[in-house]
Amino acid sequence: MEYKVGKYDVAVVGLGHAGCEAALATARMGLKTVAFAINLDSIALMACNPSIGGPGKGNLVREIDALGGQMAINTDKTFIQVRMLNTKKGPAVRALRAQLDKRAYSAAMKYTVESQENLDIVQEEVVKILVEGERVRGVVTKTGGIYEANAIILTTGVYLRGRIVIGDLSYSSGPSGLFPANELSKSLEELGLELGRFKTGTPPRIHKDSVDFSKMIMQPGDEIIIPFSYSSGKIQREQVPCWLTYTNEITHKIISDNLYRAPLYTGEIKGTGPRYCPSIEVKIVNFKDKMSHQIFIEPEGLNTKEMYVQGLSTSLPADVQIEMTHSVKGLENAKIMRFGYAIEYDYVNPTQLKPTLETKSISGLFLAGQINGTSGYEEAAAQGLIAGINAALKLKEKEPLILSRSDAYIGVLIDDLVTKGVTEPYRILTSRAEYRLLLRQDNADLRLTEIGHSIGLVSDERYKKFIERKNQIDEEIKRLRSIKITPTEKTNEILNELGTSSLNSPTTLEELLKRPELNYEKLKIFDQERKELPADIVEEVEISTIYEGYIRRQMAQAAQFKKMENKKIPEDIDYDEVYGLSFEAREKLKKFRPISIGQASRIPGVNPADINVLLIHLETRKRKNING
Amino acid sequence: MEYKVGKYDVAVVGLGHAGCEAALATARMGLKTVAFAINLDSIALMACNPSIGGPGKGNLVREIDALGGQMAINTDKTFIQVRMLNTKKGPAVRALRAQLDKRAYSAAMKYTVESQENLDIVQEEVVKILVEGERVRGVVTKTGGIYEANAIILTTGVYLRGRIVIGDLSYSSGPSGLFPANELSKSLEELGLELGRFKTGTPPRIHKDSVDFSKMIMQPGDEIIIPFSYSSGKIQREQVPCWLTYTNEITHKIISDNLYRAPLYTGEIKGTGPRYCPSIEVKIVNFKDKMSHQIFIEPEGLNTKEMYVQGLSTSLPADVQIEMTHSVKGLENAKIMRFGYAIEYDYVNPTQLKPTLETKSISGLFLAGQINGTSGYEEAAAQGLIAGINAALKLKEKEPLILSRSDAYIGVLIDDLVTKGVTEPYRILTSRAEYRLLLRQDNADLRLTEIGHSIGLVSDERYKKFIERKNQIDEEIKRLRSIKITPTEKTNEILNELGTSSLNSPTTLEELLKRPELNYEKLKIFDQERKELPADIVEEVEISTIYEGYIRRQMAQAAQFKKMENKKIPEDIDYDEVYGLSFEAREKLKKFRPISIGQASRIPGVNPADINVLLIHLETRKRKNING
Ligand SMILES: Cc1cc2nc3c(=O)[nH]c(=O)nc-3n(C[C@H](O)[C@H](O)[C@H](O)COP(=O)(O)OP(=O)(O)OC[C@H]3O[C@@H](n4cnc5c(N)ncnc54)[C@H](O)[C@@H]3O)c2cc1C
Ligand SMILES: Cc1cc2nc3c(=O)[nH]c(=O)nc-3n(C[C@H](O)[C@H](O)[C@H](O)COP(=O)(O)OP(=O)(O)OC[C@H]3O[C@@H](n4cnc5c(N)ncnc54)[C@H](O)[C@@H]3O)c2cc1C
Repeated sequence: MEYKVGKYDVAVVGLGHAGCEAALATARMGLKTVAFAINLDSIALMACNPSIGGPGKGNLVREIDALGGQMAINTDKTFIQVRMLNTKKGPAVRALRAQLDKRAYSAAMKYTVESQENLDIVQEEVVKILVEGERVRGVVTKTGGIYEANAIILTTGVYLRGRIVIGDLSYSSGPSGLFPANELSKSLEELGLELGRFKTGTPPRIHKDSVDFSKMIMQPGDEIIIPFSYSSGKIQREQVPCWLTYTNEITHKIISDNLYRAPLYTGEIKGTGPRYCPSIEVKIVNFKDKMSHQIFIEPEGLNTKEMYVQGLSTSLPADVQIEMTHSVKGLENAKIMRFGYAIEYDYVNPTQLKPTLETKSISGLFLAGQINGTSGYEEAAAQGLIAGINAALKLKEKEPLILSRSDAYIGVLIDDLVTKGVTEPYRILTSRAEYRLLLRQDNADLRLTEIGHSIGLVSDERYKKFIERKNQIDEEIKRLRSIKITPTEKTNEILNELGTSSLNSPTTLEELLKRPELNYEKLKIFDQERKELPADIVEEVEISTIYEGYIRRQMAQAAQFKKMENKKIPEDIDYDEVYGLSFEAREKLKKFRPISIGQASRIPGVNPADINVLLIHLETRKRKNING
Repeated sequence: MEYKVGKYDVAVVGLGHAGCEAALATARMGLKTVAFAINLDSIALMACNPSIGGPGKGNLVREIDALGGQMAINTDKTFIQVRMLNTKKGPAVRALRAQLDKRAYSAAMKYTVESQENLDIVQEEVVKILVEGERVRGVVTKTGGIYEANAIILTTGVYLRGRIVIGDLSYSSGPSGLFPANELSKSLEELGLELGRFKTGTPPRIHKDSVDFSKMIMQPGDEIIIPFSYSSGKIQREQVPCWLTYTNEITHKIISDNLYRAPLYTGEIKGTGPRYCPSIEVKIVNFKDKMSHQIFIEPEGLNTKEMYVQGLSTSLPADVQIEMTHSVKGLENAKIMRFGYAIEYDYVNPTQLKPTLETKSISGLFLAGQINGTSGYEEAAAQGLIAGINAALKLKEKEPLILSRSDAYIGVLIDDLVTKGVTEPYRILTSRAEYRLLLRQDNADLRLTEIGHSIGLVSDERYKKFIERKNQIDEEIKRLRSIKITPTEKTNEILNELGTSSLNSPTTLEELLKRPELNYEKLKIFDQERKELPADIVEEVEISTIYEGYIRRQMAQAAQFKKMENKKIPEDIDYDEVYGLSFEAREKLKKFRPISIGQASRIPGVNPADINVLLIHLETRKRKNING
């Protein structure tokens, strides 16, 4: 029996990483929101590795933070180790990565959403989307509850018709021994959405006391902790180490010998898995020549003995899991507490979405997270935030927020999804970003805080602090540019001592800073009066100065790119009327209905020639409209 | 495919309250133990009220502690409120009760079992019991893993063929959105065990900020915290209040009007529910004249907004749950975060068990907890501990531990189960104990620490402390007995001032302490030199003295009772050879096979006349054996 529960502005289905950000965003933007989870004890559960960040992913977390999202703040509250990766490489690929306490992160996020004004949290499975005409009207839960809503954000993760596979065993299930959602997919299909099937996997968890760490390489946390959130301030905390070991020929032989029992190869698993997080059996098959693979042993929290075996993701039968685990150095006597498994689930083809993450066909229906074919907590959270923001902006009848590929990794992520679609679980990679040097993790606030503030997710207080930081950076660069060092003997002596060549003519500190042999710290000797600046300001000044040329070039390209993005294609365009399009391009354009020339140009099958034809058509049309 | 994992002494199936105690006991007693749970994130989950203790239950917790169990220790670590109930009533019904942080308790117990030497923890569903002849051999898990074991302890709680019911909705499920165990029951049936079907229920959880506490009565914690565990020492902690409100005529009308949709009355629920924890609809039907029922609003933890609505347990449809909740004073705008539900599950008829909790028919197969037809965390933990101890003692070929009804509430609980069986979920009540005054919560250590120490679960250090406490009590009682107060004018004046009558002849302090107008504190004036004793010692001295007569009488009865318990019935007795038994008694005795005359006398249908016949038979048999 159905019954009415209440009227909301927004209903968020799911309280994983996407759902939490989405619900917090709409509630914080003043909209009455209800959010559902199948199990309230598993809010923001890290079903796989309890770790946040890394290349590309870390940038997403920083961007979420700059826009006023929650992931970075709660990561800072609950990490047990933090490392800056790639410190020896360029700033574009430097990446913060944190190991978290799994239970603590989930508890912290649960408390955050529970404590949020305008937000109601309900443990209920949503089984149906209600639609009137082509607009959403609300959702129906398993007990029959009708929650009316003007916008709905689906963030169902790996739960839709979830099915776990281990060896020859398979059964209907959500992740981690939780219930799946078996009914909602049908409702989505009835709405005309096209669903696909993906799979993801997780490695065994082992008992800490059964590991011989003396045979492994210790990976301690950084001595100086750099937080994820710009609002966290200084953090001091004892950290726990992770450990590095390797697979070997025996491991590989065990796996090869058992491939005939691997569900990925027997055909038992039909969903496509993530290329960039492959299971160990796929690694063995695809990289035959590699004699060993890295295995990281990582704690799942402080008050638990469970450890995560990164690199050993698998759906091989349990007996093979035991054998292959024991073949790894240091894991000879490892006790498995939970077996690895694969999970298959329904996703929605994301080319059915606008860049706002609203579906093209049903007004008010937004999708975010793993349901869009992505994998990863950060990817999910980023989409959740954008879907939340856009749902709120839509209900407030404001312009949507569409971040471009040159604004943010979030822009790259969403543009890739909605324009190119997915053929395997999508994960962010630095190589996906054309303007990597602009989209650094260190400057996410400079890129996005303004936006976060203007939509109301970044508080005035925090914004003020941000402006101060921005000014400090700008002023320091200006100051360095204004100070000229004259080539005296003394000066040149010092420079030579610092391992760099002498000056011939007066040179600014800015110019000097660009020399690879020098850095801000070393320049102090020429700049005695300067005041002490925080490390993050110095870093920003250094990067902006040193990479100034590259950055300028990327900015020029980005400007060019944006021009194309800004050439909007009217929603009512009739592609059959555009003469000169290739057959394939016409079909693709009719199907995807891109919002801009930029987006059109990235649709696979649409060529530069087609884009030219389109540009001419739009120009003609504009003239007609002006004249007509 | 099945595969061998390893050999263990003991396999424990389940890590709820029973399973944790069982596994800890066998591991601590030196046996290699493996323990399974369907989900490692829900170890020692409090699926219902996050509260431990209360009348009878509190005694169990103290007894578990005295025997070296874990529940009391972890309760003390994670409580957020403690109260001593019934302080105005006699010591037999005084009861400690704690409100816990649900997540923290589960996390603490998970860490305890993970950290226990000799104990392996595995997330796996056990689907089959392996038996060879009439002895257990091991268990098989869902992935096909064979874990060999010489003893198996089943503690599957409400998971066996679990089925959730809310209104007209019902589906296969474990508690709290967790997976059920659908396969093991079949294996038990195949072993010839008789299963039954019970149900239990839970109320809605509501959001703290939606409650109007100003309309309720605050229930703060005690100012002086008395810990559950004798090993906890002094505890100081900030506590949070609970709140009291009431149902009213409108609530009752809503429920009455919707009874036709109540699964308990439509026949949808077939399992029998707990009489002493009835759902609100049952209360309304059974106590028609009661105009209101108590409702306690209790926090589920510190860092959560979820609150438990004690007294509103229900499986009524969700819309009725909303309506009836809103009818309660202070809950007018309450937001439900989780709906109440009933869960039906398989239990095993406990008359198939020996008082050791081993099944009569299969050697080495022990059962403990809700699977034996009980309800309640404390009841489960108590059984788990005893099953663990007895499994270990059996494998060590030592005498089993059978606590009698005069030793402990645990004795009452287990004797009731195995002798009388269950017709509804069994809960401990003080009224079930014949020797209440002996089985006080304040003296559980005096009753049981000796035993806990002798079986190796209580450390020498702790035992030494206990002996000190015991001696202090004994010596103080002796001392009070030895000091005589002579009836001087001054003495009598003081006595009169204290509101009690004058002395005629020299009287010991012990005698004076028995006067209802006096207490230990007041006697100080006659006993200036006495040294300051800890409050718990004083309490013990007072109770032993004041109730000395009653206690002596109960002890005499208990001794009489024990005599009967000690008259063992040989395992090979042939009841068909016992002439003079009534037909019913003979059938019952043949079925139950009691271990003692005492137990035989408590079997429903066995009369005093039958017991006499039995006694004569045993006497004759003994003589024959001696002479023959
Ligand atoms: C086994 C496994 C391995 C993984 N491995 C990796 C990895 O190696 N690397 C990586 O980056 N990522 C990995 N992931 C992916 C990562 O966990 C997800 O991408 C991320 O959690 C997705 O977030 P989400 O918010 O989209 O969904 P989830 O975190 O899955 O949350 C979904 C939420 O929706 C709720 N829900 C679902 N359906 C309904 C419904 N009908 N009604 C109400 N509520 C509903 C659920 O209760 C839950 O709260 C793995 C995930 C799993 C399960
Ligand atoms: C909805 C509900 C309401 C309740 N209401 C009350 C109440 O009002 N008052 C009260 O005192 N008590 C109540 N209880 C009862 C209380 O929760 C239980 O009595 C107590 O938790 C039982 O403890 P247990 O250890 O026997 O089982 P549980 O705590 O249920 O634990 C069972 C364990 O066994 C595991 N398991 C089960 N089957 C398998 C298998 N095949 N293989 C591997 N592992 C398995 C599970 O994963 C779990 O770890 C309620 C319980 C529920 C679910």
